[in-house]
Amino acid sequence: MDNVKLAVVYYSMGGTNYQLARWAEEGAKEAGAEVRVLKVPELAPQSSIEKNPVWKAHVEETKEVPVATLNDLEWADAIIFSTPTRYGVMSSQMKQFIDLTGGLWARGKTVNKVVSAMSSAQNPHGGQEATILSLYTVMCHWGAIIVPPGYTDSAIFGAGGNPYGTSVTVGQDGKMIEDVRSAVKHQAIRTVTVAQWVQKGNQ
Amino acid sequence: MDNVKLAVVYYSMGGTNYQLARWAEEGAKEAGAEVRVLKVPELAPQSSIEKNPVWKAHVEETKEVPVATLNDLEWADAIIFSTPTRYGVMSSQMKQFIDLTGGLWARGKTVNKVVSAMSSAQNPHGGQEATILSLYTVMCHWGAIIVPPGYTDSAIFGAGGNPYGTSVTVGQDGKMIEDVRSAVKHQAIRTVTVAQWVQKGNQ
Amino acid sequence: MDNVKLAVVYYSMGGTNYQLARWAEEGAKEAGAEVRVLKVPELAPQSSIEKNPVWKAHVEETKEVPVATLNDLEWADAIIFSTPTRYGVMSSQMKQFIDLTGGLWARGKTVNKVVSAMSSAQNPHGGQEATILSLYTVMCHWGAIIVPPGYTDSAIFGAGGNPYGTSVTVGQDGKMIEDVRSAVKHQAIRTVTVAQWVQKGNQ
Amino acid sequence: MDNVKLAVVYYSMGGTNYQLARWAEEGAKEAGAEVRVLKVPELAPQSSIEKNPVWKAHVEETKEVPVATLNDLEWADAIIFSTPTRYGVMSSQMKQFIDLTGGLWARGKTVNKVVSAMSSAQNPHGGQEATILSLYTVMCHWGAIIVPPGYTDSAIFGAGGNPYGTSVTVGQDGKMIEDVRSAVKHQAIRTVTVAQWVQKGNQ
Repeated sequence: MDNVKLAVVYYSMGGTNYQLARWAEEGAKEAGAEVRVLKVPELAPQSSIEKNPVWKAHVEETKEVPVATLNDLEWADAIIFSTPTRYGVMSSQMKQFIDLTGGLWARGKTVNKVVSAMSSAQNPHGGQEATILSLYTVMCHWGAIIVPPGYTDSAIFGAGGNPYGTSVTVGQDGKMIEDVRSAVKHQAIRTVTVAQWVQKGNQ
Repeated sequence: MDNVKLAVVYYSMGGTNYQLARWAEEGAKEAGAEVRVLKVPELAPQSSIEKNPVWKAHVEETKEVPVATLNDLEWADAIIFSTPTRYGVMSSQMKQFIDLTGGLWARGKTVNKVVSAMSSAQNPHGGQEATILSLYTVMCHWGAIIVPPGYTDSAIFGAGGNPYGTSVTVGQDGKMIEDVRSAVKHQAIRTVTVAQWVQKGNQ
Repeated sequence: MDNVKLAVVYYSMGGTNYQLARWAEEGAKEAGAEVRVLKVPELAPQSSIEKNPVWKAHVEETKEVPVATLNDLEWADAIIFSTPTRYGVMSSQMKQFIDLTGGLWARGKTVNKVVSAMSSAQNPHGGQEATILSLYTVMCHWGAIIVPPGYTDSAIFGAGGNPYGTSVTVGQDGKMIEDVRSAVKHQAIRTVTVAQWVQKGNQ
Repeated sequence: MDNVKLAVVYYSMGGTNYQLARWAEEGAKEAGAEVRVLKVPELAPQSSIEKNPVWKAHVEETKEVPVATLNDLEWADAIIFSTPTRYGVMSSQMKQFIDLTGGLWARGKTVNKVVSAMSSAQNPHGGQEATILSLYTVMCHWGAIIVPPGYTDSAIFGAGGNPYGTSVTVGQDGKMIEDVRSAVKHQAIRTVTVAQWVQKGNQ
């Protein structure tokens, strides 16, 4: 049987969700998955990025990260989404990428993707829950199989106990406040594990 | 390998969600599942029921239907919930039943249940979507595997195209307006199928 | 012009939401409101309460607090709800109380109530956002005017920055972890202030 | 006292949400408001629009409609949003426009805007509720005052009974299936009326 193919699809301005994506990759690889870490296309003009040193540096740092495509989604057995909150809903960059999947959707290629999501916010309760739930609403339309972490590992409690998906608070200095690495890895392992079940069962 | 064990847990005053539950049972049995159709405990006093002829008749008609217990939830590999909307959120009877599962939850017995949900309302957009989504929020806390129907079958379009779960509008006369039987059956078959994958993969 | 009449309707097992309700009362009175702090009816049997010393003590401590009635809701110009999370949705006790307002609703008596909500959870991201949003979904059905705090005061940032409503994390010892008193008071003042506008404008 | 200033901010590919916006304008003007109907910027490349005759025709037809700006939001006392669903959440075009309001938000200029929302979908339950609720989640972050229609007028029942906001189903031929004009007008009048109360009370 093939390894599970996992796409970790993220949007990041300052590097937080990129880091979450990398930790997810780490966990998923330990669980035997083939992993692609992929950034969604940027909507902001280059001039906006240039004005913000942190943003600019992050864009520079991740210029080798491939941009997510519809082919990646079709390729994937499982997808983990990671997006900062924007007013309690996924960022417009993530939404735009998802909105363009109508063709895949119409051909039934989004069905049974095993999915999970992560988020970040500047305030502890600044949309960390609601943002992930907005992604799961979308995933229902896909006919995906949604695998939230719940409280399936003690690492989740240490990371703030978000049962919808791992989330993290970003301080004024741009650094993560909680230590969520173990929770992210667990979430990725869990997602890959369920995808293995689906793959094996569905043969 | 054992057959998948499916609990169809419903709340019904006038019979709509009971009927949805029976159709789910029908589909699930065709898919080879062992099925228990179970009603959640009533919170209303008998005196309220007595005053409402439709309600009273339904309670009478379903007096042989077993009341859902925590043992049923522990027994089940998969659970389909069916609840009328009450202001866009599941009915208090359903919520109360779920709120009492803390012991199961603490022992990890809610993890990896394969779940799906259905709803009804008196208006076409009177909470049919939101009610199901409120159940999925709860299911994240359980560490369940959420299997919405999406648009995985043409029957769904005929039933109003609710990707979160089958829903139906109840007319002034208490009868269902849309013909949702095929959509319910499909949702049940899909839920059982994914539960089979999880069961087989997870051995 | 009459003072704004505010009902603070809460459910509490261990005292957290009762305390939030009292702080809301404090803020609302400073803003000139007439306030009723009201508990929703308990659904649990006395035997369950007896087995839990903290719960029992809280029930004892608050036995003089009036139980919320439909008359209180009709009386009120504004309502603040406070409920612990139960799996990311309001507690069944709160839901049951609200589900019984169908008569008020049918007579148009829930329209234009100025409402806001608060919550608590044992994990920082254990439903603090989602629980409040579940209440706002319900409030849409009422035709209420929903007044979330947003980020309208610096106290909100200190309390975890929940824009949906004040929320608090309850530690293993049953004590609140964040200091949310100022945020609760601000939320109450804001709710009363908007209710004053509605009252004055609507004359 | 000045008239209430209402911005009706919409995204439309085929004309449905544009029509909803125009009906909202009609109602709002009857209620004495000064109204701006505004489209959010398009994210799709011109080449995509060119390939779709309906889309192209709509873009052509509405080329004189002003594009919404941050100044419009600052100007407005009240805002009605109208967006097609995209997988149960507002369209990325609408989200992108809203995501760019961070500067307004930081200066407190989104506080106390009186807001309401409308949506459309191709299936009766294809996100008509969830899309509007996603907008209200965002509005909480703004510190807005949310005014859903609830069931405050009989026209709402005729339009499908969506208490979150008026929504409409678009048939295969691109035409609206339900007659929602009266419901939209009512929603606009209600929004303007509450905005008048806030304006008058807040002087």
